[in-house]
Amino acid sequence: MQLPNFADIEAAARRIAPFAVRTPLVESPALSARCGGRVFLKLESLQRTGSFKFRGACNRIALIPEVERQRGVVAFSSGNHAQGVAAAAGLFGVAATIVMPQDAPRAKIEGTRALGARIVSYDRQRDDREAIARRISEEQGATLVRPFDDAAVIAGQGTVGLEIAAEAPDVALVLAPCSGGGLVSGVALGLSRAGIKAVSVEVENYDGMRLSLAAGHRVKAPGGALSIADSLMAPLPGEIPFALAQGLLEPGLCVSDSELARAVSYAALQLKLIVEPGGAAALAALLAGRVDAGGRGIVVILSGSNCDFETMAEAVRRHPSP
Amino acid sequence: MQLPNFADIEAAARRIAPFAVRTPLVESPALSARCGGRVFLKLESLQRTGSFKFRGACNRIALIPEVERQRGVVAFSSGNHAQGVAAAAGLFGVAATIVMPQDAPRAKIEGTRALGARIVSYDRQRDDREAIARRISEEQGATLVRPFDDAAVIAGQGTVGLEIAAEAPDVALVLAPCSGGGLVSGVALGLSRAGIKAVSVEVENYDGMRLSLAAGHRVKAPGGALSIADSLMAPLPGEIPFALAQGLLEPGLCVSDSELARAVSYAALQLKLIVEPGGAAALAALLAGRVDAGGRGIVVILSGSNCDFETMAEAVRRHPSP
Repeated sequence: MQLPNFADIEAAARRIAPFAVRTPLVESPALSARCGGRVFLKLESLQRTGSFKFRGACNRIALIPEVERQRGVVAFSSGNHAQGVAAAAGLFGVAATIVMPQDAPRAKIEGTRALGARIVSYDRQRDDREAIARRISEEQGATLVRPFDDAAVIAGQGTVGLEIAAEAPDVALVLAPCSGGGLVSGVALGLSRAGIKAVSVEVENYDGMRLSLAAGHRVKAPGGALSIADSLMAPLPGEIPFALAQGLLEPGLCVSDSELARAVSYAALQLKLIVEPGGAAALAALLAGRVDAGGRGIVVILSGSNCDFETMAEAVRRHPSP
Repeated sequence: MQLPNFADIEAAARRIAPFAVRTPLVESPALSARCGGRVFLKLESLQRTGSFKFRGACNRIALIPEVERQRGVVAFSSGNHAQGVAAAAGLFGVAATIVMPQDAPRAKIEGTRALGARIVSYDRQRDDREAIARRISEEQGATLVRPFDDAAVIAGQGTVGLEIAAEAPDVALVLAPCSGGGLVSGVALGLSRAGIKAVSVEVENYDGMRLSLAAGHRVKAPGGALSIADSLMAPLPGEIPFALAQGLLEPGLCVSDSELARAVSYAALQLKLIVEPGGAAALAALLAGRVDAGGRGIVVILSGSNCDFETMAEAVRRHPSP
């Protein structure tokens, strides 16, 4: 198993710079007042394709040797990785096939199709998406772009941490939503030279990273009932993300679906930002009072914004005073 | 009549730096693809109090001599200036009285009250808000903080232009929503040394700046039917803004209510940003194809985000594919 290192993130930053948005890091006076210390938001919700996933996909695809790349790429994803891969493939002029669950948010399915990818649907409960993707990869010679268990993908996501370290040196903690762990482990590595700690935030029943960090080895979360955070439902952290995370992350946090909905509403009403439930996990942990930075600055990564409008509006209706 | 100059904007920038958010300037890949040139968004919608108005209010209040400032401030406003003044007064520890129309958006009335200001309501059709504010000023010795016809207020708004010039030197045009003209004239002055042009965008029937620029003297727009852009309903540009604008602005643009609603929907669905109708005027002009930067970069100022949630959701329902 090859772990990415700090230089890989620096190289990824140079590689993706012509394509990725250098997303804003902006202070929220409302959150700073509420938390008693400065709170900054890293707006990956404004990244190309509406989530951080574009960074990792772009770095990974850039690294495929030219002759292989022409045979296309394939990926399995509930949506954000799908759009990231589709957009990056489009920029490199190669065909992308995406294996997506039938019940993925309409915004994500349509977004992926609009980016020119071919979509193959599967049933989340019945089918094995990895097997479907592998078969396509073998038949077409397409390169499989994994969502998180890939050193180049993690290095791409780590550029988020590099940007935070460059712009906000006086913060103590960075909170990142976590599913398979690609974002938070990459960010932690990207922050490592700045002495800034990263914390993973998962959704209840899918808190594999939290359980694994506590146990010292990979532990599968119970899973079960679907969460409103369709992008956070990996029950087990990836091998590479976990190996990185073990040495770098603080103990993990998790939040409930109701706390996520409250955070989505707070983002819309107070921050004036549309954030998807999974992308609001770090904000949810902050609002729920799970984090104490001891008066020092905190960065909250808002990692994605690809929910159907109605999902966001429903959260606001349920939590009109979040 | 004392016009602000470039040095006034530089001084304002230093004065408000501890309080105002340096708002992000971020490229929108979706808009760049649509317009065939790079399009950047200046997110004043994320400014403290949800609009650029905080900048001017903060600069103006900072310049009131200490002994006068302790007698408080008074302002008349449909909402964004109200919140800007209330917040700035709060930061300087002085009392604020705001004269607001009864039909202002609930979000703005509540926002102003939450910032600690005393609110005096008036009827938009019947009462003279300036007279009410003047009476309060005379009775209490409070300083009247005008919304746009004030050199210090304009210098504060001009810091938006200064920030754009510092971060995006390779743009040709900056589009700014315009009501009384404080923002766009200040921005034009702030951009003047960078060789970047500013363009005002008003709403139909309230396009006093456009008419005045064309006529070469101040001309009152017809007004009449209320616009959904409650923040853009000044029929006549201020004297100082117009005097500045004459030498600096390109010919003015205007958009319809329906184009504003479409822009509000586009902001929510594509940009993932909540913008109020008036704050979306510049975006509306771009989406309606009124602007040609000849392939060079454009900056769109999203100037405010204080609409009731339902106003935004209604725009999305009416324009689901903006």
